[in-house]
Amino acid sequence: MRVCVIGSTGHVGYVLKDIGKTEASIVGVAPGSQGEDVRALYAEVRALNSQAKAFADYRQMLDELKPDVAVVTCHFGDLASVTIEALQRQIHVFSEKPIATTLSALDDVQKAYSKAGVHLAAMFGIRYEPCFLTAWDAVRNGVIGQVRLLTAQKSYKLGQRPDFFKDRKTYGGTIPWVGIHAIDWVHWFSGEQFLSVFAAHSSLHNRNHGELEVTANCQFNLTNQVIASVNIDYLRPENAPSHGDDRVRVVGTEGIMEVRGGNAYLLNADNDGIHGLSLRSGRGIFSDFMAQVRGEGECLVSAEDSFYVTKAALLARLSADEGRSIRFGHDG
Amino acid sequence: MRVCVIGSTGHVGYVLKDIGKTEASIVGVAPGSQGEDVRALYAEVRALNSQAKAFADYRQMLDELKPDVAVVTCHFGDLASVTIEALQRQIHVFSEKPIATTLSALDDVQKAYSKAGVHLAAMFGIRYEPCFLTAWDAVRNGVIGQVRLLTAQKSYKLGQRPDFFKDRKTYGGTIPWVGIHAIDWVHWFSGEQFLSVFAAHSSLHNRNHGELEVTANCQFNLTNQVIASVNIDYLRPENAPSHGDDRVRVVGTEGIMEVRGGNAYLLNADNDGIHGLSLRSGRGIFSDFMAQVRGEGECLVSAEDSFYVTKAALLARLSADEGRSIRFGHDG
Repeated sequence: MRVCVIGSTGHVGYVLKDIGKTEASIVGVAPGSQGEDVRALYAEVRALNSQAKAFADYRQMLDELKPDVAVVTCHFGDLASVTIEALQRQIHVFSEKPIATTLSALDDVQKAYSKAGVHLAAMFGIRYEPCFLTAWDAVRNGVIGQVRLLTAQKSYKLGQRPDFFKDRKTYGGTIPWVGIHAIDWVHWFSGEQFLSVFAAHSSLHNRNHGELEVTANCQFNLTNQVIASVNIDYLRPENAPSHGDDRVRVVGTEGIMEVRGGNAYLLNADNDGIHGLSLRSGRGIFSDFMAQVRGEGECLVSAEDSFYVTKAALLARLSADEGRSIRFGHDG
Repeated sequence: MRVCVIGSTGHVGYVLKDIGKTEASIVGVAPGSQGEDVRALYAEVRALNSQAKAFADYRQMLDELKPDVAVVTCHFGDLASVTIEALQRQIHVFSEKPIATTLSALDDVQKAYSKAGVHLAAMFGIRYEPCFLTAWDAVRNGVIGQVRLLTAQKSYKLGQRPDFFKDRKTYGGTIPWVGIHAIDWVHWFSGEQFLSVFAAHSSLHNRNHGELEVTANCQFNLTNQVIASVNIDYLRPENAPSHGDDRVRVVGTEGIMEVRGGNAYLLNADNDGIHGLSLRSGRGIFSDFMAQVRGEGECLVSAEDSFYVTKAALLARLSADEGRSIRFGHDG
């Protein structure tokens, strides 16, 4: 299997980490956005495959190398158009999230996908972290009964972000870029569909990061009266012990599951007090993606989930921009 | 100072615990709601003051004993009307929260209060718990800079509640009864005013508790683009190590403060990693209330806060009932 990487901005690390386990190799690298510098990435890729080529134009790369898989990881505002170019060539796509930064671009990607007959997945790689995978598996196995209420958190250090983060057009917004993971957990843990969202975000106190929002919250009503909220911030102090502080708390009819600090905690009738779960070793998202491409399994992240959660994030952003609640299926 | 207690339903324990430190005594006890049994409470009160009297009609008690202070702690749907009777007699009121269970009754209480010239406070006693008081004091002293994002949690065991919890008319709803504490923390920690709320609640899986909602979430937009959310559940397993699991996480421009498990944790540039604060010993809410009545201090819970937070809780309930966002000042 031949893989091309377009862009060096997103979580291409998922690919570099797993590529050796996939019977595939990276054969080409190109920028996906204007001004994107892929030299450091190309040096890393060459260390893995000395035959890999660098291109200035990713379309030319796709036409010349005819890869099986495109890894799309350029500036977020360009993800959709690059993905469409790959899909139109019947190339499988492993894309940075969000799949698109506007609802109309998302619609265009979905149309291209439905014609292409290939696999596509967004980089919801946090699903594969042992704490999340273990907690999800246990919840799916019924340890907390039926899921009723979810609270999820994304907290990041801001540091100094590249310039393209400062512009909604190139960045897409903090709810679609950061919050989308937590929105994904809400959907993934609950198994429910989104009915409405009310969200807020603010770029006040963003330390000269232009339009970038540093705080946000989204509340979702889901099917079966399941309720969820997602809080997001970029205000984690720079000296904090980790870059991020991902959490989810899932309240069910028979217990409560929490993921926090890289651990999974269960409180239910089977245990006296709060019980830390033994973590399953996580497999890698890119290995899993490639297994599905080879027809040897099913990636935890489906194309449907990738589109659906991207749409939820974009509708949440719309709600926050307009200060009104948005009903899924009515407003988008 | 002479105190009468009306009702035995709410947190009268605040009063019994502190009464000996207040140079006051409980001189009378009466039910405030139909069917309320105050015999056990009366026995406790008699152990403190053998002269205390029991009455069947609280109005008769107020007229006969002419107390300085009425503790109002009957069924929640009757709190407002009992409070009004006390205020009309120029009696200070220490009331179970919420102050009222309807917006019109709240308006009536505020009118009676403004004429009475006495003190009134709601039982926002969790403010006085050492973890909350210590965290609030530190936040007020600037350890996390300016508050930007808050997430608060109330999680309770359901157990078997009395029948009056099963009816909205007598109970008032879970957002005004349980969630109100977390709504209070949002206002108290941020110092901001509420602008809008979007909320949801559900009584599914409430184990034969009629209309009682067992899950809820409220998202608030506040002044200065501060964002907050409050999640509430009654699904804490019965074998959990504590009755409740109160939490608040306050994200500021310079750090993050968390209250969880009875502790207060600070993450900011002054500490390497997360730092547990030494807890201040909490004073009691009723002692503090009585000090203000005597003109010797100011209760942490003002009448204004009591009314304001009750109104916020009732507007959140309205939002949840109607599935729409509510703007403060427009819709109520």
